[in-house]
Amino acid sequence: MAFKVGLLGFGTVGTGTAAILRDRDRRNPLLQDIEIGRVGVKSLDKPRAIALDPDLLTTDLESIVTDPDIDIVVELIGGLEPARSLILKAIAAGKHVVTANKAVIARYGDELYAAANKAGVYILLEASVGGGIPIIKPLKESLGANRISQITGIVNGTTNYILTQMTEEGADFDAVLTEAQQLGYAEADPTADVDGLDAADKIAILASLAFGGRIDREAIYCEGIRQVSAEDISYAEKLGFTIKLLAIAQKTENRDNTLQVRVHPTLLPNAHPLASINGVYNAVLVEGEPIGQVMFFGPGAGEGPTASAVVSDILAIAGILKSAGKNTALNPLLSCSHQDYSAIAPMEEVVTRFYARFLCGDRPGVIGHLGTCFGKHEVSLESVVQIGFQDKLAEIVVVTHDVQEKNFRQALEEVRSFSALDSISIASVLRVF
Amino acid sequence: MAFKVGLLGFGTVGTGTAAILRDRDRRNPLLQDIEIGRVGVKSLDKPRAIALDPDLLTTDLESIVTDPDIDIVVELIGGLEPARSLILKAIAAGKHVVTANKAVIARYGDELYAAANKAGVYILLEASVGGGIPIIKPLKESLGANRISQITGIVNGTTNYILTQMTEEGADFDAVLTEAQQLGYAEADPTADVDGLDAADKIAILASLAFGGRIDREAIYCEGIRQVSAEDISYAEKLGFTIKLLAIAQKTENRDNTLQVRVHPTLLPNAHPLASINGVYNAVLVEGEPIGQVMFFGPGAGEGPTASAVVSDILAIAGILKSAGKNTALNPLLSCSHQDYSAIAPMEEVVTRFYARFLCGDRPGVIGHLGTCFGKHEVSLESVVQIGFQDKLAEIVVVTHDVQEKNFRQALEEVRSFSALDSISIASVLRVF
Ligand SMILES: NC(=O)c1ccc[n+]([C@@H]2O[C@H](COP(=O)([O-])OP(=O)(O)OC[C@H]3O[C@@H](n4cnc5c(N)ncnc54)[C@H](OP(=O)(O)O)[C@@H]3O)[C@@H](O)[C@H]2O)c1
Ligand SMILES: NC(=O)c1ccc[n+]([C@@H]2O[C@H](COP(=O)([O-])OP(=O)(O)OC[C@H]3O[C@@H](n4cnc5c(N)ncnc54)[C@H](OP(=O)(O)O)[C@@H]3O)[C@@H](O)[C@H]2O)c1
Repeated sequence: MAFKVGLLGFGTVGTGTAAILRDRDRRNPLLQDIEIGRVGVKSLDKPRAIALDPDLLTTDLESIVTDPDIDIVVELIGGLEPARSLILKAIAAGKHVVTANKAVIARYGDELYAAANKAGVYILLEASVGGGIPIIKPLKESLGANRISQITGIVNGTTNYILTQMTEEGADFDAVLTEAQQLGYAEADPTADVDGLDAADKIAILASLAFGGRIDREAIYCEGIRQVSAEDISYAEKLGFTIKLLAIAQKTENRDNTLQVRVHPTLLPNAHPLASINGVYNAVLVEGEPIGQVMFFGPGAGEGPTASAVVSDILAIAGILKSAGKNTALNPLLSCSHQDYSAIAPMEEVVTRFYARFLCGDRPGVIGHLGTCFGKHEVSLESVVQIGFQDKLAEIVVVTHDVQEKNFRQALEEVRSFSALDSISIASVLRVF
Repeated sequence: MAFKVGLLGFGTVGTGTAAILRDRDRRNPLLQDIEIGRVGVKSLDKPRAIALDPDLLTTDLESIVTDPDIDIVVELIGGLEPARSLILKAIAAGKHVVTANKAVIARYGDELYAAANKAGVYILLEASVGGGIPIIKPLKESLGANRISQITGIVNGTTNYILTQMTEEGADFDAVLTEAQQLGYAEADPTADVDGLDAADKIAILASLAFGGRIDREAIYCEGIRQVSAEDISYAEKLGFTIKLLAIAQKTENRDNTLQVRVHPTLLPNAHPLASINGVYNAVLVEGEPIGQVMFFGPGAGEGPTASAVVSDILAIAGILKSAGKNTALNPLLSCSHQDYSAIAPMEEVVTRFYARFLCGDRPGVIGHLGTCFGKHEVSLESVVQIGFQDKLAEIVVVTHDVQEKNFRQALEEVRSFSALDSISIASVLRVF
């Protein structure tokens, strides 16, 4: 039995996917049953890294998703449209769908899952989070017996590369970004990566699968790494922390069914399993009961790794079709379903530790005033360190105990109003894990 | 549709499994369809951590594996017999099988897989390696499109705990072993763990799945941690290494289809992803093409984590039965099949780096002699460090470049014969990653 795959897109991931599918000499015999039926692209003239029978190529992507010969549609064009419409049309035509598109799943996951379930087809998305790292399938299947309490991920390779370089070289954000762009680790327009939007898409997907509810993408708090400075990285190091852009989804303990979902740079204790994930690597830490902690680590992007994930989804569908035939019910472990929206706690209610750096004029009583502002809003301090002098201003770093974001913000307001006297300025504020 | 599970064994893992199955309030609706039909134990009088309907309990395990009401037999008694015979009888009676038993799979995997494939049932074994860590399913399914080149694991929690404690406390093996036994991290008879036998079972299973061939368990080189000394750990640290008990399976590059499969304490560079896996945690690093490196990290044992893996296998079978019914062909991604035995390279042919520590009388020319012995057998040295003095003897540590094990052994023989002059003794020899 042979299964025909229709590829939408033949760029980085599409090419990698075709490279695996056309290499017959692999350990998995099931790969022999999979054929590339059609390939949809934007331009027919573009030179391609893999020579394809020109008859396979088309710019008419609609004709692929409705082609009766195609069993599985693999969406690798990216972006919201026409990806979303093409996926919906493929589903309506009874095709199984594989996609690497985090943007479309994070925003239209519910719509797509509902359509797929109604049509009795699978929509699989292993490559949409963590590139080659097996995370979606392990989360849905291998950890399926667990109550998940928290997912913490380094899910954006560009920002992890930048932060790692800043840490190793003591360099500033802008310099490292330029270098990353030259090396191809960052896009010309780096916004989606450095402002945390890509990470927010991914944690939305993970949270919806782990907690079984729809996630309002717009409700995710999202802070990027542009304001992380070389100084803060170095002070964090002195205090035993590494700064990482974390994507976090966790159950709030005191409020039933409320989730915290957020992306921000975070000071991680060096002993934390995610603290040693460097460069373009990604990792996702899943915590639950009774499993405890498990972590999945690997390449978060790239042609080969991402294609490995795409092909594993194609194989999963082919394996089912081959063993059970085409007219069986969906396996509840592989299909995605969502009930209601998960309530997402407002950021002010999040409880976390904070790191803040202040520049203080050398007036007597300044540290005392800082302490008073914090005390007034029930922010208790774990450590206060005077790190050094900068332009004759004393640099003071505080790390708080766990505190409600709201209280901490109020305390900072208090400090700010005091600094109208021009003796304290807030140089940076970061969260601590 | 409800599926009935027959549990063989109700000890640590059996109790944990029942705890999950009887807790109806979990996120996975499929769990609602699974019922505990029978439970087989050795003693009916033993107090049990979970109260079971006494009618469920029996000491007649054969009656469970042939019970027409049972769909899935879960073998959690451990050991070779009666586990092997019971699994074979369950398969013959058309039951799907889930097992956590690495010993029986490492030795009789081929026989059990062949019987299962013939009978058209699954035999799943996620819990047999890495406790709660999803590794078997990701290896078979998520990484199914890859050519695996190497698997490197810390797959025994007891030895990893002991080595971690020795590293952190500078303590000797015997002292830490006693402590580990008191804490329940090591068994009264620690042989299977500390001599590397348990790790060898696990790497046999991983290698057979990753490379698709049968592994002769007896051909696995196996060296435990008894001879690792506090001194070597501390010298390794000074050189930038952490000592871990690694289980390694890798394709030999120059010899087609030959595998190296071995378990031994190893000096790992501190930057290696496995170097920071501490305590009872396990981790498995998989390398392949096109994925690159992926690592799976988590709790390698324990009631809850291991039960999480067992139940994920039960769910996998229930999901298939529920969606596809009972009379479908086996899904090739989930079933295990083996062709021929993999040829395992003899240890003498393995190429690796070595660490060796020598105690030398303070005679002129001793270091020169060491160098001569190594040079004669084409062992080139990466570093030679005189670390200190012990009982008036100079302590010299060498780290070699990559060298064939055979050549290194011959060089050591040469050193040994020279040491008949009583001026050099070999204090320890370890491999370096
Ligand atoms: N690259 C990675 O490392 C990576 C990792 C994880 C996930 N992903 C995801 O994988 C997807 C694909 O990424 P990529 O890096 O492979 O993208 P890419 O290199 O930019 O390739 C996009 C492909 O889609 C085609 N295409 C785009 N818009 C089209 C349209 N409107 N009509 C027809 N064809 C269209 C392009 O055609 P032409 O070739 O004719 O221009 C190109 O072949 C994205 O969702 C991305 O987020 C990528
Ligand atoms: N414990 C872990 O963390 C862990 C982790 C990974 C894998 N595993 C594997 O899981 C399996 C079970 O381990 P465990 O720790 O749960 O063992 P355990 O606590 O010793 O429990 C063994 C159970 O099997 C029953 N049993 C043993 N031999 C029997 C026989 N001949 N007839 C009937 N019943 C028999 C015992 O009955 P009684 O209760 O009446 O004595 C007991 O309920 C083993 O293969 C082990 O390697 C364990």
